[in-house]
Amino acid sequence: MTTTQLPLRGIIPPMVTPLIDNDTLDKVGVERLVEHMIAGGIHGLFALGTTGEAPSLSYDIRYQLVELSCKIVNGRIPVLVGITDTSISESLALAEHAARCGAAAVVSAPPYYFAPAQQELIEYYTELADALPLPLYLYNMPSHVKVIFEPQTVRTLSEHPNVAGLKDSSSNMVYFNSLVHIMHDKPEFSLLVGPEELTAECVLLGGHGGVNGGANIFPELYVELYNAALACDIVRVRELQARVMEISTTLYKIGKYGSSFLKGVKCSLSLMGICSDFAAAPFRKFRAEERAKVREILERLGAEIKNP
Amino acid sequence: MTTTQLPLRGIIPPMVTPLIDNDTLDKVGVERLVEHMIAGGIHGLFALGTTGEAPSLSYDIRYQLVELSCKIVNGRIPVLVGITDTSISESLALAEHAARCGAAAVVSAPPYYFAPAQQELIEYYTELADALPLPLYLYNMPSHVKVIFEPQTVRTLSEHPNVAGLKDSSSNMVYFNSLVHIMHDKPEFSLLVGPEELTAECVLLGGHGGVNGGANIFPELYVELYNAALACDIVRVRELQARVMEISTTLYKIGKYGSSFLKGVKCSLSLMGICSDFAAAPFRKFRAEERAKVREILERLGAEIKNP
Amino acid sequence: MTTTQLPLRGIIPPMVTPLIDNDTLDKVGVERLVEHMIAGGIHGLFALGTTGEAPSLSYDIRYQLVELSCKIVNGRIPVLVGITDTSISESLALAEHAARCGAAAVVSAPPYYFAPAQQELIEYYTELADALPLPLYLYNMPSHVKVIFEPQTVRTLSEHPNVAGLKDSSSNMVYFNSLVHIMHDKPEFSLLVGPEELTAECVLLGGHGGVNGGANIFPELYVELYNAALACDIVRVRELQARVMEISTTLYKIGKYGSSFLKGVKCSLSLMGICSDFAAAPFRKFRAEERAKVREILERLGAEIKNP
Amino acid sequence: MTTTQLPLRGIIPPMVTPLIDNDTLDKVGVERLVEHMIAGGIHGLFALGTTGEAPSLSYDIRYQLVELSCKIVNGRIPVLVGITDTSISESLALAEHAARCGAAAVVSAPPYYFAPAQQELIEYYTELADALPLPLYLYNMPSHVKVIFEPQTVRTLSEHPNVAGLKDSSSNMVYFNSLVHIMHDKPEFSLLVGPEELTAECVLLGGHGGVNGGANIFPELYVELYNAALACDIVRVRELQARVMEISTTLYKIGKYGSSFLKGVKCSLSLMGICSDFAAAPFRKFRAEERAKVREILERLGAEIKNP
Repeated sequence: MTTTQLPLRGIIPPMVTPLIDNDTLDKVGVERLVEHMIAGGIHGLFALGTTGEAPSLSYDIRYQLVELSCKIVNGRIPVLVGITDTSISESLALAEHAARCGAAAVVSAPPYYFAPAQQELIEYYTELADALPLPLYLYNMPSHVKVIFEPQTVRTLSEHPNVAGLKDSSSNMVYFNSLVHIMHDKPEFSLLVGPEELTAECVLLGGHGGVNGGANIFPELYVELYNAALACDIVRVRELQARVMEISTTLYKIGKYGSSFLKGVKCSLSLMGICSDFAAAPFRKFRAEERAKVREILERLGAEIKNP
Repeated sequence: MTTTQLPLRGIIPPMVTPLIDNDTLDKVGVERLVEHMIAGGIHGLFALGTTGEAPSLSYDIRYQLVELSCKIVNGRIPVLVGITDTSISESLALAEHAARCGAAAVVSAPPYYFAPAQQELIEYYTELADALPLPLYLYNMPSHVKVIFEPQTVRTLSEHPNVAGLKDSSSNMVYFNSLVHIMHDKPEFSLLVGPEELTAECVLLGGHGGVNGGANIFPELYVELYNAALACDIVRVRELQARVMEISTTLYKIGKYGSSFLKGVKCSLSLMGICSDFAAAPFRKFRAEERAKVREILERLGAEIKNP
Repeated sequence: MTTTQLPLRGIIPPMVTPLIDNDTLDKVGVERLVEHMIAGGIHGLFALGTTGEAPSLSYDIRYQLVELSCKIVNGRIPVLVGITDTSISESLALAEHAARCGAAAVVSAPPYYFAPAQQELIEYYTELADALPLPLYLYNMPSHVKVIFEPQTVRTLSEHPNVAGLKDSSSNMVYFNSLVHIMHDKPEFSLLVGPEELTAECVLLGGHGGVNGGANIFPELYVELYNAALACDIVRVRELQARVMEISTTLYKIGKYGSSFLKGVKCSLSLMGICSDFAAAPFRKFRAEERAKVREILERLGAEIKNP
Repeated sequence: MTTTQLPLRGIIPPMVTPLIDNDTLDKVGVERLVEHMIAGGIHGLFALGTTGEAPSLSYDIRYQLVELSCKIVNGRIPVLVGITDTSISESLALAEHAARCGAAAVVSAPPYYFAPAQQELIEYYTELADALPLPLYLYNMPSHVKVIFEPQTVRTLSEHPNVAGLKDSSSNMVYFNSLVHIMHDKPEFSLLVGPEELTAECVLLGGHGGVNGGANIFPELYVELYNAALACDIVRVRELQARVMEISTTLYKIGKYGSSFLKGVKCSLSLMGICSDFAAAPFRKFRAEERAKVREILERLGAEIKNP
């Protein structure tokens, strides 16, 4: 296990899970994808997040992926493992496995079938953090989970020695800026945003980085954006932000459903020859028509198509 | 496996899962609870539903509960098993286990992390039903799952030979009555309501019964209500409905959170000496103060307190 | 003003507002529509509700409609007037006008821009009811208003001598049945449902009737359904309910948007030669294609087309 | 009427509406408030927005306020007038009045009772903009209005010569950044954020300013923040942002309800001797206990208390 410098900072991509089918990892794809991102300069890797389709995967696949990812990374960067689950026992078991494999930390969004109240969240995460073998990052994801971590709940949970930070995927920057403000006396507590459209402003105003799905495809772009924001180079930030927004408003908007982002990222990786684009149920990969659109956009963005 | 007469009708309680702790079944409690309900005249048993806290349980506990329930029931009534999951592979594996144990059917709400579009639901359930070893009941549960089965989606899925019915827990009777109407040419397709407050009107207007949580505690009451509605005995229906509503507006309204219903049912069963009231994380059982209120209400309702 | 027998019962259609354009009433249409419904046996008339597009109308049109409706009705049945507004002063002014015109009562959904908390609702409605010259019916309409009247709030407000009942358009029958239960010791407090799909079960289980949009088109059908339910004639209820559901699942489902119901009702009335089908902004009336579908359905339902 | 330089930029406070009671303007308060803000360097004034409680005011009060505000401002800065309404006729009439009084532009959120679809929004705003005597700013306010302007809808409406910009109060910066990106070829189209917590990042990344409620109290702070962001002075931005967040996380969080922000702003202005703190129904001003908390926070923030 890598010792991580606190707070955790930078670009920590939520890795997509390369799959052959619902029950088979694309192991070669995992290796190519990890190396592609490390070559791009990423600061950490987050396996089994939303972009990783974690909830759609069998436990067997989840365990395999954690082991394989940690082995490939081999200590070069910290690996974070998503243990979000509706069953606390399954979360703990996966965390134990992650620790054995050498992961640096775990990440957990609230149980997402029942909707716990804030006091119930505090009790749940205290029980979880007490038992975890690794530091815990909270994951705020209201669109998928139905509840948020209210700022005061984050403050309370941050007192636990095992709670190391929070990733916010709400897109609500009033919320995120409130966290930055109320946590500013705990500079080792990491505050990261999920959406890549927000990494620049997050870092400019005192946050620590981005868990950005697009960094699966274009890791250098997000790393460069992070560095420019850290250096307060606004001119460069705006140039790079324009590229990020071009990707966001084109590549992720193909297809009709909420699954457009995930399918767009996987299809791009397939076209670039990195991994399979199979999407776990309940989703399906893009068909030829959408794939052609993704290809056209990638070419316009300057990506190399190896698997047309 | 019991051969079930179609459509499935009557009172099919969603059994609570008696637990010692997060990782240990209260096996004696399971047996007492099953016998209590069968003695009350129930027409079927639904294990691993929402009231059964299925998503909060480890897979190990889920598998044990299915095996134990089927063994205790021993063919006297059909056992339905909830296979709701975010991973289709885990749903299928649990269904295989249910079939081996002698369950009559399985029940599935949509994957509840990602929110599939209607077309994605149709594809998902077609793939699932094709592979299932048992008949499938759809489970509409928008408050927990975020998506509904639109009536036209139900109609489409009902063409699959393995799709046998739907349980609706939306509380929206415009929706339910629409299903009754568009399915009236398929009289073998079972349409059941979840909330016990709606069983009477469901049956009076052509639906088939209720998957009612309160039947864990007072199985005879709901069976009697079902029979009165089936016989169109409105005077009797209103008397029984008043008792159902008295339970609903008192026993399920203790405590501050959305978990009041579940905690109220489990606490009642504990007071009646039937099973443990441990609630799986992220919830906790009622403390002394709330337990005293439950006891007071149960006594007013005429229940016998064996474990004060 | 008609003295209304309490509780208010039966079929009280939410009258559509016949319009020539956004600023001109179709006065002849109003007269024909009112007479059509009174001939159909309705028990009261509700002007300026949701189906009446009240919020979309200028105050001038609202005042005209109240005056005209009361004049045409001329005491034959009670007229209820919607005073729902975001400004309490405008609500009160309209209520004064309604009283002067001879209306029997007013109806109010909560202020619908800001979302008041329950305690704020209690204070708001106490202030309103104190000042109103007519009895007040609460209007529960969460889809449009964002807040509900919690059962305990209804109970509290029902203590006010000027609060006479509640119309529920939530479609949530657990909610409605809870109101029926907690108000059963106040038999003069009227509990009505909005959706026509629910009038049967409402009346069978102790509610008082329906504020049903479809009664603009087919008043006899809903009156007959109400009478059958009141008489506990379940066989007849089911026959009529099937016709109600046929209307609900066909005539109200044309077009792509949430406005399908309103447009379907207005288009039907236009085809039947009763009034104009102009819909106030932000909506538009059906075009030829949708109109043809409405006509086809109406003919199948046996309605006479006078204005093809 | 002031000729406004395009795009409209800077700090344009949504003015609170000083009231004696529901039907009486605090005219002296309006004058003191306008002068307080102009002295603080604001770039424009927005009357009758959400912070102005516009929907809660009678039309009479709305008309008076527009006239009075324009008279006091007297061309020193542009005055924008909120015409958000559920009735297009009332919106147009108020816009005519605003034009006569010398307002520079009008602002409109979508009709907020019925929820229009995107195509219906396009038709509605085209009809409105065609008839308006002043330029129109769109107002995105999903929490109160239920619908958003999708980016493509904004793009389409921006083609209308009378549509000049958009104020976004969604707090969703993925959304706002998407607008900045897709509108970057129309540099005269103004893109402003509502929440003051977001003005810094808005301006740093290419947006044009903030319609910030807190600027009623501390206009210089928000003007200074705007200027620092415009100058890309990140060190200064962070200092000022910390003050903005301190206000946001303390002064606006008193009391239990969603109305805390509005009550906190009005109470602050009352304590500072600027205007009355009466809040229009359905809200009420803070009582002594909350007022004491506001005073304590204001003193900590260095504000002068003139009316303790």
